[in-house]
Formats: sequence, structure tokens, C-alpha cells
Amino acid sequence: MITDDFLLDTPQARTLFHEYAENLPIIDYHSHLDPVAIAENKQFSNIAQIWLDGDHYKWRAMRTNGIPEQFCSGNASDREKYNAWAKTVPLLIRNPLYHWTHLELRRPFGITGVLFGPDTADAIWDQTAAMLQAGDMGVRDILRAMKVETVCTTDDPADNLEAHARIAASNCSTKVLPTFRPDKARALKDVKTWNTWTGRLEQAAGKELDSLEAFKQALSDRHDYFAAHGCKLSDHSLEFMDEESLSDEEAAAIFSAARQEQEIAVKDAERFSNYMIDFFADLDARSGWVRQLHVGALRNPNGEALRTLGPDTGFDSIADFNYASPLAKILDRSAQKGALPRTILYNLNPRDNALMAALCGSFQDGSSPCKMQYGAAWWFLDQMDGMINHLETLSQLGTLSRFVGMLTDSRSFLSYTRHEYFRRILCRVLGRDMVGGLIPDDMELIGTMVSDISYFNAKNYFNF
Amino acid sequence: MITDDFLLDTPQARTLFHEYAENLPIIDYHSHLDPVAIAENKQFSNIAQIWLDGDHYKWRAMRTNGIPEQFCSGNASDREKYNAWAKTVPLLIRNPLYHWTHLELRRPFGITGVLFGPDTADAIWDQTAAMLQAGDMGVRDILRAMKVETVCTTDDPADNLEAHARIAASNCSTKVLPTFRPDKARALKDVKTWNTWTGRLEQAAGKELDSLEAFKQALSDRHDYFAAHGCKLSDHSLEFMDEESLSDEEAAAIFSAARQEQEIAVKDAERFSNYMIDFFADLDARSGWVRQLHVGALRNPNGEALRTLGPDTGFDSIADFNYASPLAKILDRSAQKGALPRTILYNLNPRDNALMAALCGSFQDGSSPCKMQYGAAWWFLDQMDGMINHLETLSQLGTLSRFVGMLTDSRSFLSYTRHEYFRRILCRVLGRDMVGGLIPDDMELIGTMVSDISYFNAKNYFNF
Amino acid sequence: MITDDFLLDTPQARTLFHEYAENLPIIDYHSHLDPVAIAENKQFSNIAQIWLDGDHYKWRAMRTNGIPEQFCSGNASDREKYNAWAKTVPLLIRNPLYHWTHLELRRPFGITGVLFGPDTADAIWDQTAAMLQAGDMGVRDILRAMKVETVCTTDDPADNLEAHARIAASNCSTKVLPTFRPDKARALKDVKTWNTWTGRLEQAAGKELDSLEAFKQALSDRHDYFAAHGCKLSDHSLEFMDEESLSDEEAAAIFSAARQEQEIAVKDAERFSNYMIDFFADLDARSGWVRQLHVGALRNPNGEALRTLGPDTGFDSIADFNYASPLAKILDRSAQKGALPRTILYNLNPRDNALMAALCGSFQDGSSPCKMQYGAAWWFLDQMDGMINHLETLSQLGTLSRFVGMLTDSRSFLSYTRHEYFRRILCRVLGRDMVGGLIPDDMELIGTMVSDISYFNAKNYFNF
Repeated sequence: MITDDFLLDTPQARTLFHEYAENLPIIDYHSHLDPVAIAENKQFSNIAQIWLDGDHYKWRAMRTNGIPEQFCSGNASDREKYNAWAKTVPLLIRNPLYHWTHLELRRPFGITGVLFGPDTADAIWDQTAAMLQAGDMGVRDILRAMKVETVCTTDDPADNLEAHARIAASNCSTKVLPTFRPDKARALKDVKTWNTWTGRLEQAAGKELDSLEAFKQALSDRHDYFAAHGCKLSDHSLEFMDEESLSDEEAAAIFSAARQEQEIAVKDAERFSNYMIDFFADLDARSGWVRQLHVGALRNPNGEALRTLGPDTGFDSIADFNYASPLAKILDRSAQKGALPRTILYNLNPRDNALMAALCGSFQDGSSPCKMQYGAAWWFLDQMDGMINHLETLSQLGTLSRFVGMLTDSRSFLSYTRHEYFRRILCRVLGRDMVGGLIPDDMELIGTMVSDISYFNAKNYFNF
Repeated sequence: MITDDFLLDTPQARTLFHEYAENLPIIDYHSHLDPVAIAENKQFSNIAQIWLDGDHYKWRAMRTNGIPEQFCSGNASDREKYNAWAKTVPLLIRNPLYHWTHLELRRPFGITGVLFGPDTADAIWDQTAAMLQAGDMGVRDILRAMKVETVCTTDDPADNLEAHARIAASNCSTKVLPTFRPDKARALKDVKTWNTWTGRLEQAAGKELDSLEAFKQALSDRHDYFAAHGCKLSDHSLEFMDEESLSDEEAAAIFSAARQEQEIAVKDAERFSNYMIDFFADLDARSGWVRQLHVGALRNPNGEALRTLGPDTGFDSIADFNYASPLAKILDRSAQKGALPRTILYNLNPRDNALMAALCGSFQDGSSPCKMQYGAAWWFLDQMDGMINHLETLSQLGTLSRFVGMLTDSRSFLSYTRHEYFRRILCRVLGRDMVGGLIPDDMELIGTMVSDISYFNAKNYFNF
Repeated sequence: MITDDFLLDTPQARTLFHEYAENLPIIDYHSHLDPVAIAENKQFSNIAQIWLDGDHYKWRAMRTNGIPEQFCSGNASDREKYNAWAKTVPLLIRNPLYHWTHLELRRPFGITGVLFGPDTADAIWDQTAAMLQAGDMGVRDILRAMKVETVCTTDDPADNLEAHARIAASNCSTKVLPTFRPDKARALKDVKTWNTWTGRLEQAAGKELDSLEAFKQALSDRHDYFAAHGCKLSDHSLEFMDEESLSDEEAAAIFSAARQEQEIAVKDAERFSNYMIDFFADLDARSGWVRQLHVGALRNPNGEALRTLGPDTGFDSIADFNYASPLAKILDRSAQKGALPRTILYNLNPRDNALMAALCGSFQDGSSPCKMQYGAAWWFLDQMDGMINHLETLSQLGTLSRFVGMLTDSRSFLSYTRHEYFRRILCRVLGRDMVGGLIPDDMELIGTMVSDISYFNAKNYFNF
């Protein structure tokens, strides 16, 4: 099924992919890779470790197929988990995991022409174990083999970035940069957890954070610290939004109450979140960073799973609150100060595709090409149908040519074939259009567009 | 137009349908068929009676085409209504009624190769009348001819299920089971109607329902009574949801006020609805039933039509409230008690497809294959585009292989070709994928998937 | 790329378009053309003036591509702006502007076989300038060349329609009619602006508007005045909706407070808007007009752009409030009085496509064919994907055959190729269905449908 021409169903698509996309390096500007693993060039002794450990996409699929938790996130052996996964995969036809799985066997393992499942599981286990144990498939080797030029991890402002420093000082062929993700600074709905985190920030800052002013200064200092470590992006998850922000005085009062472990009213917590988002925008604009806003996750709806397994274990979902107006106001407050950073907007509910693409257009100011980016299909939408819908909406409501392209958003070092998957889909879409006379059948023109979206736009936009 | 290979546009699709789907029996696990008609093996003297009586889809289409009410739900003769319908059909090209109409003429009537409309109306009237009056096209005969193995009707908890008992005691070749649909028990927004219904429940229960405890006990007893009559499903329409439920004490107080005909505040009514939904979940979990939640109808927006023609006459619409969070909480409250029944979630607004499919994934617990089902395209979405979108979303966000498949949701004994329509569409989608190299071109693998979705998954999931 | 058979990818589509659509006149029942320009038969001295002046779609695209404001809405010369546009177009592949641009060069200018961009900009500038300056390409000439039979402009109730009178008295080959657009009468969220406008209405009415009764009488008189000038449509933008309306007494009190420049509470302003919408419905029903409701714009989210450049300069976006219930109530209040005018519902957020199409069906009353129309893909959705989605939803949930078809909604006299674009897309969709056996392969049947949707349905529906 997955051949060299997988998804490329026109001659044009094949030329576009093989000549303008396939061999370009990867810029993975948003991931959840563990920098420590890269610093250590972590080795794996079998494919279960690299495929299944921490992969909540796969756990979720396994649960759907009636696999007990023990074989997902639980205590079963690597081999048992792998076997449970092998039993599940043939049932995942049409799910992105089916394509991902075979793409990942193909690269970096070079296993082709075979469908993964119980019949082939033994042979693939042995073959991959041999490769992984040979000593030249550490995570750095994989990154190099997949031509990953730059990868941005996702990091807490209180993090000391020690792993990043070690990588930078090493001969790692991949540039590994941190991303500033200060969600916990805004999370006043749970005052206790917020105070715990603020304590961590206090330690990182080396001074007491007894006022909003001090808190903001500490965050500003951490922002500079991240910049000194090569950071060029921030990232923020927006799971609710109020129409309004707060004055400095109101925010300071709420901050003080929260520091004294008083419960904060929901509305105040939501406005404080806006207030901090505005503040982080100032920092990003000052430093010339790109800001990412991820909107619309419904986190931890399954309380029992959260209690027993913790967050990020495959139980999240898609929210459906209305946010066109409050999100527009977030952008507007910064724009009115002349301090709107370059921003990427991502939505998780596909019903909001059009509004997100349109909202980007409302804040393009001519200062740079596609300052506002409608971000790639994210998480639940990171699949063929989701990517095609994203490309279509972006095309019709924005400027596809300027798109900064794909990212993995992944915890797994095997996920780099997702860039290949995206590039194939992009070439499929454009190839069909060329054949159908919807766009010029001009290989250089469209090929350049493909190369730009696959690599060069990101390179230019992020200043890597 | 509608040939043996209707919709099957690849060789693979044709093989899939003809060899793996066409001849399988039908399990129609959700319908609104009248059990009395089945008990009596109701006969029709002409096609208007079986096609147009009570069919609000057709009435709605006729009104859209400027046909006065008299010829829709009104007092015109069967023949006049039929003629009005014949005038309308040629205008319905691309509407599902156009396909349904011709599929229904083809089966069970065997009329093919002719387009329905004014030119052909006379001949078809005569031909179908002769068949219907021959005495071997009663509703049971039609069910047998369409290979309907099992059908679930939709029944009020206060119903004595007498018709079901008669059917069960007869030699009916189709298994006909009741479904427990207790919406009226939750409907405190109209206290008067609720009390009238509670009076009916009182009669069925044979005791006074003067407390919430008694009310719940009566419903629990009816649940057992339904179980004794073969019931294996409940069904609930959710047209609003509050984030919160009630304590037993709060619910009891609201119950008592309502029994005294006091108006109930909207918020209380909505929370009482949640409270009862939680209670019904307990019953379903106890009995091992499958629960169906139908979310998002906007009922009776046209007050004048409601007043003159009553409900279910073709004037309903699609609602757009946000429910990801409150629906997740409904599932979560049961899950936290370890009492989440197997549940099918249906949405009426297609903008919620992704969130529904994702939410199912958040409550899969590995206890059985696809415990949570993202239900088939429903009502306004029960059409080719709606079904394809449902299949796509389910595929990408869930596990298509485990899908329990189609249902009719219909009041008409002619609607069984909707299963055929669904199976053709399923084979069309998968056939295209096989040809396009998106899924393995392995007929046994994909054929088994088609058979499972068409029949076997439902058989296993519902324990029929 | 854009040949005679652009978009027509089946033999059936080609026959449908060339024989049943291409040569029909255009009824443009909703536009923003300037009637003064038509009255004066305005001439242009170069293509920048006709292409770029006031065209916020193009400005928006240029900003996205990093073009400074000076070359969009600013003070740069016509030629400089044109050059900036030429630089932008090659980047707009897959955006509707790319197709529009080449369609507009083809008609009326006759420029084909060349892609617009920096390489061809000089030649096209010269060629179009020569044509525009030859004296036979005034706006009336263009309308005639594009076979525009009827065009409806969008007009303020306080307008004296002097330009329309001049056109009517002239030999203009295009019928130019006003549309009654009284949004400012409802806009109590900004009391100051509302009073300014009410002052204008006072002048037009020639009497003091010191009571709601006088205000309504003045609007009713203007409605009659518009009718006397050939008006047959009203138009209303709904950017928020409350569930409830007001009694006459409540409305009168709010009116008086507003006239005294008191701030009006948001809820009161929103209900006053409903109250006035109901009143305008009465007027439209009385006069037999068609009412248009445009729902869901998010206007002026970018405060800085609004301050410096004003409204309608390309910074609007798509809103996402929930309106199924309040919109249904708007329709229901009129229907309950037996005074629901024929109404076209347009949505701007495509996530609401299905609910809008369904809601139309809930208020079809059999009084005339497709009394309620689900309106054409609007503004951000006026593009190939948006039109196809609209056609699909309308087909599946309504009656495509009865659709009144396309409009330009444009400020530009070059936009008439959008009707051609729509007709090609319609023929593409139907041609594919004919080839695929989804609809009868009967050219007369489907050709008639195409002609109806392209021209005749509008002619009959609007009584032009």
C-alpha cells in the first residue's frame, strides 16, 4: 500500500513530491519531544519503547478496541504491549494511525511491503530490535536520518534549559530550541496548583514573587533567558476566553488573593488569563518571537481516567465554546498598542476552521508576509481529512503560498513521517488541481510553492 | 439510474457490496415503526398509504415545492396526495428523497428503469395497488422480504407492550423488540404535560407516585418490565444540557414542586433532566443495555404549524447549543461510579461531528470493543453527504471497523432500502480507497470489515 | 488555465453550461454597486481604478502578502497599486481572487491565455487602458456586455433615490432597483450614531421623529417610497440576536430613552433590534417584497484599522454566536401573525450551513414554491469550496431545483464573472452526478434545472 508514490495520484503530484518536497530538510517548529532524551542520545532496545511509551494516540485506539489498560499505559511487558498493538492495527484502517504505523516502519526502519498485524508482528519485532540495538539508532541518529534540521521543544518557563544547553554544546546535527509555554502562569481556576507552580518560578527567578509586578518581571526575565537559549516561539493553550481583560490594579488584586490561596471567581480567573496573554504578547513582540495560540481543547473530561492515569494519557477531547469575539479582542488589544506579535492560530474543533482563517486576515497589517498564520491541522485534526480541510480553508480564505507548513506536535521520535505525510497530501491536492485546470499546470510555479510550504516559508518566518 | 451497481463506481466497490453486504440480514436497532401494525400484519390498499401517511420528510418536501397542506398531511384523497407527490419528486433531484423513492419502488415493488413523476404516476399507482392488494404484502411480509432480522421500536415506559407480546407469541419472522424511551419523565419545562404523563406512569406502575423515590422505583420497575419483553436499548433526546446535576435532596424537592403543578425554573428543569439521565444510565448499566443519546434537535420552532398540525409533522430543525462540556459531564458522572453503560452518541448538527467522535474516544475504557459508539448520521443528516461525512469523521477520529452501522429511525415500512443505501455508500467509499491505495487492496480484509459494519458488529454489540 | 471549458470536467457539464447557462441574462438581486456611477455611466481611465478602488477583498490579500497600506487603500498612484497587486496575484493560487482575476481579464477585456503577474502587468495595463479610454467601456456598457438584465443596489431608507430615478428615466439597458436596508434603524448599541442617522431619516420624512410611532410611520413611508422606485427586496444584517422581542410599550420607552441620548442596555438594544426586524417583516409582507437576512458577520474586530481606515476596508471576520433558536423565533413571530414574508437566509459561518437550510424547511408553508430560500454562499464563502458546500447542503436538506441562484454582493462593476463562476461550478457538480449515475443522465431534465437556477427561478421569485 505505502509505496514511493503513496497518495500521489497524478503525474503532477509525483513530480511535485519527488522533485520539490521529498528531499527538503524538516523544520519541526512545534513538538513535545523530551530534550533530555536528545541530550543523552537515548537508545531503545525494542520498538515497543519507541512506538508505544507515552503515545496516547495509540493507547486511545487500543482502548477503543477493547484492550485493557494494562497493555496500554500499564505494567505489561514491552512485548505484551506490542502484541496488543499488533492486534489493534488491522482494525484501524482509515484512521491516521494506520498510515502513520506503516510510514514509520518504512522510515527509519526500511520495512516495506508488509501490513502490520499479528501475522507479521514477530518478524517485525526481531528486525527492529536488531536495528535499534545495533547502536546507531539513538534519537539523534533518527533525527539526522529524517533530515530534521530544527526542532522546537515545549518548555516550562521555570525550566533551567539545562538539556538544551548540553545539546547546544554538543555536535548534534539537529538544532534543538526551547519554546516558552507559560500556561501555568495563567491557570487561576486551580489556585493550589497555580501556587505550587509559582513557587517553582520563584526558585527559577531567585526572588520572592509577592506582587504581580514581581511575577511579571520574573516571567520577563525567564523570557530573556529562553531567548538566550535560542527560543523563538511561545505557545499558549486557550481553553476558555472572556471578552474582557483587567486593569493592572484589578490584576494585581487578583494576583494577591491567589497568592494567599483564596479561591478566584471563574470570571476573574478568565480575565486574569486574558491579562497574562496580553502581557506575554508584549514580551513576544519585544523579542520578535512568534506566538502560537492553540484554541479549543477539552482537557481531562474523564475524571476517573485523570485520577488513575493522570493527564495526557489519551482521554482529552474537543471543546465547543464560542470564541470569535474574545479571541479577536485578544489580538486587537495588542494591535492597538502596536505590539501584536506574529501569531499562529490553531483550532481543535474543525467547525471553527473558517473563522480562524478569516480572523487571521483581519489582523494582517502588511508589515510582513502572512504575519498572522492559520496554523496546521492540530491533534485530532492531524489526519488526512483534517489536513485537506485545513488546506482548503486556508486556500480559499487566506494565502496558501505563505503557509509555514507542518509540525509534529509529537512526543515520539518516530513521528517525522508526519511531515512526509503532509507533503504527500499537499502534492496530491495541488497535482489534482493542475490536472483539472484549477491552477496553472506550471511545474516550476507550483513546485516552488510546494518547496516554500514544505520548508522555506518556515525558515524565513521563524528566522531559524 | 438506480441499477444493480448504483453508487458502486469501482470494481472493488461492486465486489464488496455484492459479495459482502447485499445479502446480509438487517438489524434495525432504532426505528419508530408501529408495533401494532406489525402485530396485525397491517395491509395497505395503495402506495399512498404506505408511502405518504405520516411521512414528515415527504410532507416537508412537498410544502417546499408549494403544495398546499391539504395534499400533505390534510384531507385530500390518497390519489390526490400521490399525484401531488408525483409532481414534487422530479424537483427533488440531489435530495435523499429522490434516491429513496426510486430505491423503494425497486424494492419491494420491483419497479426499475423508470423515473417517478407525473408521466409515470398512473402506471405505478396501478402496478403497486395490484401488488399491495394481492394479500402478500402486509408489513410482516415486507419485513421478511427485506430480510429484517431484528427491529427495535421506540416505546414509552408507560406502555404495556401488549403489541410486542402478541408479536413475540406469533410466528413473525422478524424479531421485534421494544426500546425504553423515557423523555417525558425528564420534561419539567412543561409541568402540566409532565404531570399528565406521570399520571400514565402511575397507572402503569399501579401505585401512587408522590415522591421522587417512588417515581424512580416505578421507572426502574418499567425498565425491568421492558427487559422481560426483550428490550436491550434505551433512547433519550437531549435538546438542552446544564453543566450540573442535582443532589437527591434537591431533585426530590423539585419533583414535589412539579407534582404540585408549580412552575419549575429553567435551570432546575435542565438539572433535573441531567439527574434523571444519570438515573437511567444506572438502570441501563445494571441491565447491560445500550443507551442512545440523540443530541441537538430544535423541536417545533414553527408555533403555528405545531398548533394546527401537531408535533412530528415536518417542521423541526437543527439546534446549535454548545454541549461538549455538559455532555462530557453526563458521561463522567456515570463513569466515576463505574456505571457508564455502553452508549451511542448521535448529533443532529453536523458541525458537532468531530466533537462527538472525539468524546466517544475519551470514554473508551478497554472493557469491550468500541463501548462508546459514534452513532450513524441521523435525521437531517441521513443522506449521502451526511453519511459520508459521518464515516469520514468516525474513520479519522475513531475506529470505523467497530461501527455498529445503520438504522432507519423511520416510521415507514418501506424505509429498509436505507440500509441498502448505506451499505452501497460504505462500499463506494472503501472501494475508492482500495483503488487509490489508501487502504490495502485486500478483498477479504476489507470485505470482512464491510460485513461487520453491515451486520455482525450490531449483532455482537447489542446481544440480539 | 481559464478556457471555454474552465471547471467543466465532464461532457455533460460542458453541454449544461454552454447550452443551458452561458447565454442567459444575469439577475443580480443583491449588490453594493454605486447607483450614481450607473446614472453617470462612469468611465475609468485605467484598470487600477475599476479593479482596486474600494475592493477590500484585494486589499486584504495584499496586506497578507506584506504590501504596505499605502499601496492598498492608501495614496500610492494607480500604477503603483496595480504593480503591488500584480506582485500579489501569483501568490493567490487557490484563493478565489486568482480565478476572479483571470475571469475578469477574460470578460469584459478579452484577455486570455496569460497569467497575471509582474511579467505580464505592463502589457495588460496598456491593453486595458486603451480599451477603457476608448469611451465604450463605461459602467453601463460593461453591464450590457455582461448581459446584466437587473441589478439591485443596497440603499439607506433615508436615501432620496435620486440616482435611481435618473437611471429609470434614461435609456439604461439594465434595470437598476434599490434595496431597502434599514440596519441603522436598529443599531441602538451606539446611541450617538443611531441618533445621527435618525436625524437623517427625520429630514427624509420631513417631520419630527419624537415617538416610536412616528419613527415607524416614517420608515413605513420610506418603504412605500422605495416601492414606488421599483424596490422589491429588503436586506438586514444580523450580528446578534436575543431570544425575545419587546412589547410596543417597552419598545416605545427604549426609543424615547435613546432619542434622549441615554445609553441603552445591551439586552434592550438586542431586543429592540428584534422588535424592529419584526416590524420590517410586516412591511415586507404587506408589500410582497422578499426579505434578506444576512447572519453572522463579525464587523470591525480590528480597532486600529477601523480608526485609521474606517469600515468596509477588509478587516471584518466571521462570528460564531448560536442563533438557531432566536432566528427561529424571528421567523415564528411573523408566521404566527400570518405575515412571514418570503425570506432568504444567508449565513457567514459555514458551520451553520445545515441549520440554515433546515430552518428554511421549517417555515415552508406550501403557499409558493420555496418561499424560504437558503441563500447563496456569501462573502468569505463566495468561493469554489464554499459554493459547493452550499449547493450540497441545499441539495440534501432542501430543494436545489428551486434555488434562486447567485448574486455578486459586490462593489465592483467587474464582478459579473462571479455569476459565470457560479454557473460553471453548478454545471460541474451536476455533470459529475450525471456521469456517476447519481442523478438521471437526462440533458433536458438537468439542463432545465440549470437554466432555472441560473436565471428563471430568480425572475419568478422576485417578480422582476
